[in-house]
Amino acid sequence: MKALVYDGPGRRSWTDRPDPEILAPTDAIVRIDAVTICGTDLHILKGDVPEVERGRILGHEAVGTIVRIGNAVSAVKPGDRVLVSCISACGRCEYCRRGAYGQCLGGGGWILGHLVDGVQAEFARIPFADTSVYLLPPAVSDESALLLADIIPTSYEVGVRNGQVGPGDVVAIVGAGPIGLAAITAARLYSPSSVIVIDKEPARLAAAKAAGADVTVQPSDAEAAVREAGGGLGADVAVEAVGVPETFELCAELVRPGGRVANIGVHGKPATLHLERLWIRDVTITTGLVDTSSTPMLLRMLAGGHLDVSRMVTHRFGLQEMDEAYDVFAHPQDSGALKVALFRE
Amino acid sequence: MKALVYDGPGRRSWTDRPDPEILAPTDAIVRIDAVTICGTDLHILKGDVPEVERGRILGHEAVGTIVRIGNAVSAVKPGDRVLVSCISACGRCEYCRRGAYGQCLGGGGWILGHLVDGVQAEFARIPFADTSVYLLPPAVSDESALLLADIIPTSYEVGVRNGQVGPGDVVAIVGAGPIGLAAITAARLYSPSSVIVIDKEPARLAAAKAAGADVTVQPSDAEAAVREAGGGLGADVAVEAVGVPETFELCAELVRPGGRVANIGVHGKPATLHLERLWIRDVTITTGLVDTSSTPMLLRMLAGGHLDVSRMVTHRFGLQEMDEAYDVFAHPQDSGALKVALFRE
Repeated sequence: MKALVYDGPGRRSWTDRPDPEILAPTDAIVRIDAVTICGTDLHILKGDVPEVERGRILGHEAVGTIVRIGNAVSAVKPGDRVLVSCISACGRCEYCRRGAYGQCLGGGGWILGHLVDGVQAEFARIPFADTSVYLLPPAVSDESALLLADIIPTSYEVGVRNGQVGPGDVVAIVGAGPIGLAAITAARLYSPSSVIVIDKEPARLAAAKAAGADVTVQPSDAEAAVREAGGGLGADVAVEAVGVPETFELCAELVRPGGRVANIGVHGKPATLHLERLWIRDVTITTGLVDTSSTPMLLRMLAGGHLDVSRMVTHRFGLQEMDEAYDVFAHPQDSGALKVALFRE
Repeated sequence: MKALVYDGPGRRSWTDRPDPEILAPTDAIVRIDAVTICGTDLHILKGDVPEVERGRILGHEAVGTIVRIGNAVSAVKPGDRVLVSCISACGRCEYCRRGAYGQCLGGGGWILGHLVDGVQAEFARIPFADTSVYLLPPAVSDESALLLADIIPTSYEVGVRNGQVGPGDVVAIVGAGPIGLAAITAARLYSPSSVIVIDKEPARLAAAKAAGADVTVQPSDAEAAVREAGGGLGADVAVEAVGVPETFELCAELVRPGGRVANIGVHGKPATLHLERLWIRDVTITTGLVDTSSTPMLLRMLAGGHLDVSRMVTHRFGLQEMDEAYDVFAHPQDSGALKVALFRE
């Protein structure tokens, strides 16, 4: 089969690899029908995620069809159309028992395209299939479902839920890439009074406006905009959706006393925490890897038409156009890409 | 009257000042019967709290007797024995309405010995008396009540409650000064499985042991001790009770995935937040100034014998011995002082 392989920092290839096989009774083999590329894949290619070995097939967001199951798998069967989540769950460890699948101690967590071969391929082996794939209702298209593999649950759980967004809140979202845009949609579920989106790129701010932001501003205007919306006090919740020290530190500046900073970004460097200002301000800061514990609920919302993800995919490709899709996704300034989707021909 | 006056960085004097007067209808004048000194007062004397003006009477923790009230005061009357809390509350602003008195927007918050004259004096003016002093039950001694003016509610609200300590938790407390020791007592209210206290000073570790710590260790042994208690994973909650970057950063190292860091310390410098490690670990970090919203409950606990604060005061003085009390409190390595208490002769 063909697969997208990480060949070390800066190098990838769409190349031939052996078809995956059942290795454990809890495995399933999935034919990939639709797949996308994540900002995290670009981090891996930059060498920012050193535990990814050369030769690893990347990708952790897909929709596919079960073609074979191990003899301990009972929740899905060959022919089933499933969402392959970015998080695998052993289902048995202390963290899985609490729904904290992202922190799975039993061999799951974020493993696909990271510690085991991923889903940017024609077929993929999915460990712990019973607790790591989700049957798709017919009403949900492959393209929409794809967004529930990572970015929608991530922005919902790690941004909006950790940030405790509530009715009437002033929400500042720093970064209007795919995760930031998904966070607008997720925040809207809780009826905030104002969603302010901050980014440097005018095109991304326009996308934020289209996705439902009330106010879109450059970073230099963020503090004034947030203070105005927050009655002079600042944001109730600031969501970090970039992953660099500057944007995290901006979030910490923007929250009001008693406010929350929810970090979603994947960081490669430490940030400065201004405790000399924050110690007295009752601020809560959260970090998190998505658990995807919200995926069944989000799928119901999507099937019921209560979750609009229609603007997220900007570019569509055939699966064999993987190289071109990576080039487009890696250069959003030129391509205007948000999410790209690749489909089996 | 005599009062302890801040004369600029490094200088204080126990000196004559005019008796305080009612300035607003919501004021009360309190005769100070017992008062203590806070680590924060030492921070002020070092010049770390620049908004404190020269000539300010310090002190924000006292027990006293109401001697005069403004004509809008109705909850207390002359002769009443009251706890004077470190936090004053206007009772009317958005934050006070939510019990977040520490963030009061109406002129309260931490004002005593900070923005207005404090309680290290023979008499003090207490603004917003109805919502800022607490009637003391006869069963509660002046000395015990004194500890409820700041350190017990601070360690309870900002350490234990913000840190969401729960049954079975592994709790690491970094710093065994008065606040850290009070945090042991406060954490015990929630039946943790293990309380591990970390400090450099052997005498303070001994005090922590006496106050109920299960394990006491030097900072260099903290990680091993916490991992052992936490089944290899780390602490559920790490409480920062010092206020320097190193101790905050140690707390962030000690928590398990999904754990909480509750900062109590008063910080003068920024800390480094290792987001490159923490982004994926589901960590929650909180900061906070005490609200004293728990004070009525803590007073009931104290009156009912459910809160043991008996080991906290190590040195007792007459009120006129203020200078000597400061010297003893400022040099705990020599004096072995935890809290000092001064009583009206």
